[in-house]
Amino acid sequence: MGTVFVDMSMSLDGYIAGPNDSQENPLGDGGERLHEWVFELQSWRAEQGLDGGKTGQDDEIVAKSIERVGAFVMGRRMFDNDDGPWGDDPFEGPWGDDPPFGTPVFILTHHGREPLEMDGGTTFHFVTEGIERALERAEEAAGDGDVRISGGADVVRQYVEAGLVDEIQLHVVPVLLGDGIRLFDHLGTRPIELERTRIVGSPNVTHLRFRVVNERATENEER
Amino acid sequence: MGTVFVDMSMSLDGYIAGPNDSQENPLGDGGERLHEWVFELQSWRAEQGLDGGKTGQDDEIVAKSIERVGAFVMGRRMFDNDDGPWGDDPFEGPWGDDPPFGTPVFILTHHGREPLEMDGGTTFHFVTEGIERALERAEEAAGDGDVRISGGADVVRQYVEAGLVDEIQLHVVPVLLGDGIRLFDHLGTRPIELERTRIVGSPNVTHLRFRVVNERATENEER
Repeated sequence: MGTVFVDMSMSLDGYIAGPNDSQENPLGDGGERLHEWVFELQSWRAEQGLDGGKTGQDDEIVAKSIERVGAFVMGRRMFDNDDGPWGDDPFEGPWGDDPPFGTPVFILTHHGREPLEMDGGTTFHFVTEGIERALERAEEAAGDGDVRISGGADVVRQYVEAGLVDEIQLHVVPVLLGDGIRLFDHLGTRPIELERTRIVGSPNVTHLRFRVVNERATENEER
Repeated sequence: MGTVFVDMSMSLDGYIAGPNDSQENPLGDGGERLHEWVFELQSWRAEQGLDGGKTGQDDEIVAKSIERVGAFVMGRRMFDNDDGPWGDDPFEGPWGDDPPFGTPVFILTHHGREPLEMDGGTTFHFVTEGIERALERAEEAAGDGDVRISGGADVVRQYVEAGLVDEIQLHVVPVLLGDGIRLFDHLGTRPIELERTRIVGSPNVTHLRFRVVNERATENEER
């Protein structure tokens, strides 16, 4: 079975998006600052169907994060950032007909829906049975590949709190954003121990990778 | 004139102390976890008047942070973590007769008081004229040395927001503390750009140092 991982760009003060996020402003005010480092990379551009871009250290890290994924899990609002289920059926969400995932994607929702097979290998599956079941299905679909918990922050928090995440990769952007959506917002009072497994300092970003030392909740009777 | 800097141990989720901090529990529940890496170092122990301890990379970083300081600025509650001014006069605060600073220390307070000269080179000065004036006095006293904004978090935030900090050094401890006192809590919506100037990965802690790119407020007419 693969690894369950989180991979996020975060400001030094812990934000993954700016304030006032909305359908028209999905990254929030100033939030695009957190992704500038990635927009110019060859691996990221290729995922969006674009040519060219920079290679090098940052690009290798992003390429690896893309390549390892066998399935994604994400919250409903990342799939479809309008007012909700499912006013825009047939799907007209932000991802277009050929989404950049190229794998099965499991969407957490309270509103069941038939799977949506898109171009380029992406199929959206809709899971109404909660985060554990969504992860189970993603792990089955991923085979030997890894499962990426894509977001948003609330979904990442739920998986981390439940002890279901093996690895947290953060790309720390050297800015204090000052306000917005935090990645880790009051996870609770049980500290979660990590072990840093990689550190790479590029000029525009600091890549930190951690293994979650606490066991998975399902293997830990004390929880 | 020296550098104005902040130097803090912080959890990966941004906390510098645990929840439920009090006079008896100044680091909050679980907060000592953030300082474990430093307690065993020779430089830190020497500052407390203790012999022995580990040398190496972490120790050199801490030694340098101690050596460079010509004066400290801190909040009233770091000086005297009881209910307040100045019930325990003569001073019976947490620092004892021979505090570890060995330099002038400027305490931000609304209650003026005569300076307190302690053993070992520490003199506490009490500043009622606000953060700018406290920093001015600290810079005068520090000479060619640097000024360290010691804390707490609210004091650090005030100085960062005012554009008065040149450098932020963080020792990121690989734990998600889940709750407590955040170092950077809603600084406001004007992003503050940084430049990473050092990255050192030790097994138990990640040392990150940043230069604040935004100019000081006093030099920036747009503020």
